[in-house]
Amino acid sequence: MKELSIQYLEEAIEDSRPFAASGNVNMTLPNFDETMKDLLGVSIITTDLKCYSAGDHRQFIPMQSTSKVIGLMLALQDFGKERVFNAVGMEPMGDFFNSISQLESYDTSKPFNPMINAGAIAVSAMIKGQNPANRFERYLTFLKEITDNDDLAMSEDVYEAEKANGARNRALAYFMQSTGTLVTDVEEALDLYYRMNSVMMCCDDFARVGLFLARGGRSPRSDDRLIPPHHLRTVKAIMMTSGMYNSSGHYAVEAGFPCKSGVSGSIIGAIPGRMGIGVIGPAIDAKGNSTAGGALIKKLSQDLDLNMFGENGGLS
Amino acid sequence: MKELSIQYLEEAIEDSRPFAASGNVNMTLPNFDETMKDLLGVSIITTDLKCYSAGDHRQFIPMQSTSKVIGLMLALQDFGKERVFNAVGMEPMGDFFNSISQLESYDTSKPFNPMINAGAIAVSAMIKGQNPANRFERYLTFLKEITDNDDLAMSEDVYEAEKANGARNRALAYFMQSTGTLVTDVEEALDLYYRMNSVMMCCDDFARVGLFLARGGRSPRSDDRLIPPHHLRTVKAIMMTSGMYNSSGHYAVEAGFPCKSGVSGSIIGAIPGRMGIGVIGPAIDAKGNSTAGGALIKKLSQDLDLNMFGENGGLS
Amino acid sequence: MKELSIQYLEEAIEDSRPFAASGNVNMTLPNFDETMKDLLGVSIITTDLKCYSAGDHRQFIPMQSTSKVIGLMLALQDFGKERVFNAVGMEPMGDFFNSISQLESYDTSKPFNPMINAGAIAVSAMIKGQNPANRFERYLTFLKEITDNDDLAMSEDVYEAEKANGARNRALAYFMQSTGTLVTDVEEALDLYYRMNSVMMCCDDFARVGLFLARGGRSPRSDDRLIPPHHLRTVKAIMMTSGMYNSSGHYAVEAGFPCKSGVSGSIIGAIPGRMGIGVIGPAIDAKGNSTAGGALIKKLSQDLDLNMFGENGGLS
Amino acid sequence: MKELSIQYLEEAIEDSRPFAASGNVNMTLPNFDETMKDLLGVSIITTDLKCYSAGDHRQFIPMQSTSKVIGLMLALQDFGKERVFNAVGMEPMGDFFNSISQLESYDTSKPFNPMINAGAIAVSAMIKGQNPANRFERYLTFLKEITDNDDLAMSEDVYEAEKANGARNRALAYFMQSTGTLVTDVEEALDLYYRMNSVMMCCDDFARVGLFLARGGRSPRSDDRLIPPHHLRTVKAIMMTSGMYNSSGHYAVEAGFPCKSGVSGSIIGAIPGRMGIGVIGPAIDAKGNSTAGGALIKKLSQDLDLNMFGENGGLS
Repeated sequence: MKELSIQYLEEAIEDSRPFAASGNVNMTLPNFDETMKDLLGVSIITTDLKCYSAGDHRQFIPMQSTSKVIGLMLALQDFGKERVFNAVGMEPMGDFFNSISQLESYDTSKPFNPMINAGAIAVSAMIKGQNPANRFERYLTFLKEITDNDDLAMSEDVYEAEKANGARNRALAYFMQSTGTLVTDVEEALDLYYRMNSVMMCCDDFARVGLFLARGGRSPRSDDRLIPPHHLRTVKAIMMTSGMYNSSGHYAVEAGFPCKSGVSGSIIGAIPGRMGIGVIGPAIDAKGNSTAGGALIKKLSQDLDLNMFGENGGLS
Repeated sequence: MKELSIQYLEEAIEDSRPFAASGNVNMTLPNFDETMKDLLGVSIITTDLKCYSAGDHRQFIPMQSTSKVIGLMLALQDFGKERVFNAVGMEPMGDFFNSISQLESYDTSKPFNPMINAGAIAVSAMIKGQNPANRFERYLTFLKEITDNDDLAMSEDVYEAEKANGARNRALAYFMQSTGTLVTDVEEALDLYYRMNSVMMCCDDFARVGLFLARGGRSPRSDDRLIPPHHLRTVKAIMMTSGMYNSSGHYAVEAGFPCKSGVSGSIIGAIPGRMGIGVIGPAIDAKGNSTAGGALIKKLSQDLDLNMFGENGGLS
Repeated sequence: MKELSIQYLEEAIEDSRPFAASGNVNMTLPNFDETMKDLLGVSIITTDLKCYSAGDHRQFIPMQSTSKVIGLMLALQDFGKERVFNAVGMEPMGDFFNSISQLESYDTSKPFNPMINAGAIAVSAMIKGQNPANRFERYLTFLKEITDNDDLAMSEDVYEAEKANGARNRALAYFMQSTGTLVTDVEEALDLYYRMNSVMMCCDDFARVGLFLARGGRSPRSDDRLIPPHHLRTVKAIMMTSGMYNSSGHYAVEAGFPCKSGVSGSIIGAIPGRMGIGVIGPAIDAKGNSTAGGALIKKLSQDLDLNMFGENGGLS
Repeated sequence: MKELSIQYLEEAIEDSRPFAASGNVNMTLPNFDETMKDLLGVSIITTDLKCYSAGDHRQFIPMQSTSKVIGLMLALQDFGKERVFNAVGMEPMGDFFNSISQLESYDTSKPFNPMINAGAIAVSAMIKGQNPANRFERYLTFLKEITDNDDLAMSEDVYEAEKANGARNRALAYFMQSTGTLVTDVEEALDLYYRMNSVMMCCDDFARVGLFLARGGRSPRSDDRLIPPHHLRTVKAIMMTSGMYNSSGHYAVEAGFPCKSGVSGSIIGAIPGRMGIGVIGPAIDAKGNSTAGGALIKKLSQDLDLNMFGENGGLS
């Protein structure tokens, strides 16, 4: 087991960066191009609030699917576990994140879980607020508090690109409307979903979200519990079984702690009682996970003994 | 948080027993009938080797799918991670345990994971041995050692019943042969699989298997490591994402530690660094999990703070 | 074999009407209610232009899916067989008419055929015209000519209901947009599709469409060929394999000539070289076909020796 | 429209032979190799019993799936329509001929139709006989009579190869046993199925089967009706919607008469009231149909005006 230090992280970054070569940058995102392919950054914040960063950790990228974690926390807060999981399942899916067949092929048309697009659209439609602007405002305010970063903002360019490329998500949402799973206005639900995906964050911010999950939902500002621990357990368990698209099983084995990735190349990791991790690495594989970022996550797990399935349950 | 004691376990049993009413006993198993419906037993063995049992913990039932855990350990031991997962995936499936569609609907015809029937048949075909008798002998010897119970034996009646009701497993195996996934003799592979499922165990034995996983693969006799810890991490991670049929996501949320169930009503639980749990409760739900046993597992998790996604990672 | 006469048709109607009891009226259509359940009407027009009608043949109902036949004729006329079947397949599907899974589960995301909703949306998007109003105008003008009925018009109420209940079709259309199958504006394509479905017709009109297909695409006014015979063969073949939702195979066996049904309870039949048939019977089965209308179609086939698979190929 | 003559057929063969280049010979069949790739033969026998043959019409090949037509006739004869279609559906499938997913994905586990492997296994299990040898004997005797060819025999080599490559069919059969669809002995059912597929025939024989279907089930020897016409209508209708694997819709459009193909490159065609066609062309496409043979079938349809969906219903 190695010791966590900035120098160690810099070495780990250099070890993992070559894996970017096997991935591809998601060119549908504005300003994402070949020049971003080799970017790789990491921040780790431990529960005793020490912060370690290395590599391209100041690079800002859109949250994309990592927003699903935030949406789920807010929906659980607003409606409780029973009502949320009345609208969406909690089972891993074994299929691509934007699958529509799964909505059709089972008895109920509930999306499998809140980490796939259909599930996240259904869940984010549950975030309370008087109007769409208001609901996104609430999301952003919460995100600013848990990351302790008042500068967070949505990228208009990303939001517009999400809308322009939104046909698949529209199909998912209208399908759910047709089966009664989605009862709110479809275009409003999608609009909120696109906005949530379009908030720009860097490694520190992603790590702060992981830390929030790892240390019982405490505000970094007031140390108040903003979300009850039992809801966070739910979120982390679902990240473990479903957070890394249809490589979630692989990451449960190889990393062994709750993670959530986004197609921008972002990864949030949360090791309960120990630390939050934020990674960015825009080159992604066919399943949507950062190739270099994923390699880094697995290396950190091994070197720092983070695997919760180890003999000591990941608590060294 | 409550204190672990025999008295506590007896209370927990009585709290959970009513859930048997919503389940059904699997009548295809010999001697399984209505009189078994309300049976419920539990054993817990902590890593400091204290043993607590309550309820019908002396009832013997066939291992059924809990044998998949043993088969996976032996295959990993014999062929290593790379070769095992060349033959079978490690992704959760989101479908019923005996699904054959999944074999057909993806690019490769690899079974999703070793916890579903197709995957377990493919994995157990990897257990080394000169002939079928020899291979089952090896399985049983290993099982006797890790449970410290030389009396374990296969039930001929259960074995015959498995064979007689084996059409679905035959279909899975021949399908895998047709795609080249299963290269050994199909009938031999199935025979071993049926034998593995037919070993009779009671709660203490199931708990011993859980303990073996929880404390680094050490023999209860010699304290030697029989299986390297990295293989056990793999097994536990796969139990977490796929061990409870297509309720695995639910159990990850509600229990929060690796479990594996069988349609005889057996459940093995392993809390890394803390304890092994063995439960029997023959009334099962539509997905194949013990209803009263599952209720008990969730209650234990809550009362004894076993959820690994909690703030302290399940290590109290 | 019986002789075709009005009296025979009236007897056939009374024989078939009781089958309405096993169906249900599609209440999502305006003015469709229980009082319509027992309606049953038929018109037959032979290629020598004799017309026989009986029962509730003057009842007007919306075309619904029978419009798919018209849309396909116009698209073939406008773009030719190669380009139309570049966008849509010609294989029967074996699944429900509004299935979205099938779009996802095959190599290409082409809809299986033009008789299912996805396929018909893709095909109707090919009807030429400078703008949506213009394209629907063309559809209606063509329909007026081949039915020799200038009074045909769209029901605004049905059109509004189609739009209001359009979530599933929207999902199909956006899915096709996401895969590049649908390249035109989705909302425009759907609007035309809804309008086409909303034209009101009675048995005589439906029979006229069947006759048009049966006698080589000749205008009942000018006797000119409006659509080349080779396109009509294509349309009739696809009606035979796919025209009756996922009971098409059943109707190929039991009726044995090309038919197309709609969920309003309409059926168009075309017996090449012999006659066109129009049926209405609003009580439909779970697959979308008129129960009494279907029974009537099968009875006509038997009594009048219309089955093309008979020894004389349906030409008595 | 061209006139049917041996010279015409020889020209049609030469026109169609180049399509063999795009296909592949099924090398799992004994003695099938590259040297067979360009073989192409045809026989046509009209209902007035004139016979026209050309090309490699004397080449013998195994029946393969063309046997499904014979099996269905015998099962209908033995059990009647209701009981046969209680065990198997009559709907086209839209999936590959050896699909197992379809058995699992619908409410009932009935195979879609008797032209796919699962359906044919279920149907041939219905052929009456005291023992397997007896049942095959009955099949062969019937086949000899309708082809007027007492020399027909099974190839032992093909039969052995069928058995050796039978894993997929075994999987289908055991799956059907597990759902109660197949109630007879699985290995016996498969054995009969393999034997049926292994009978060797040449173009004349295949054409005789087509003629039998086309002229009302009359024995070429006694002119007695061996199978009632209503059963033949059923068989021909199912050939039209499902006879050419998942290109059946394509052939309904492009040929327009009932056909059944086999992966040996055989095709049986039946034009009701007009003629039977037998084609062999061992180079097959990815769906299992002879490429040159399919091209020839379509050319014959066009040149000889055989398309039943034409204005005159295929009766020139």
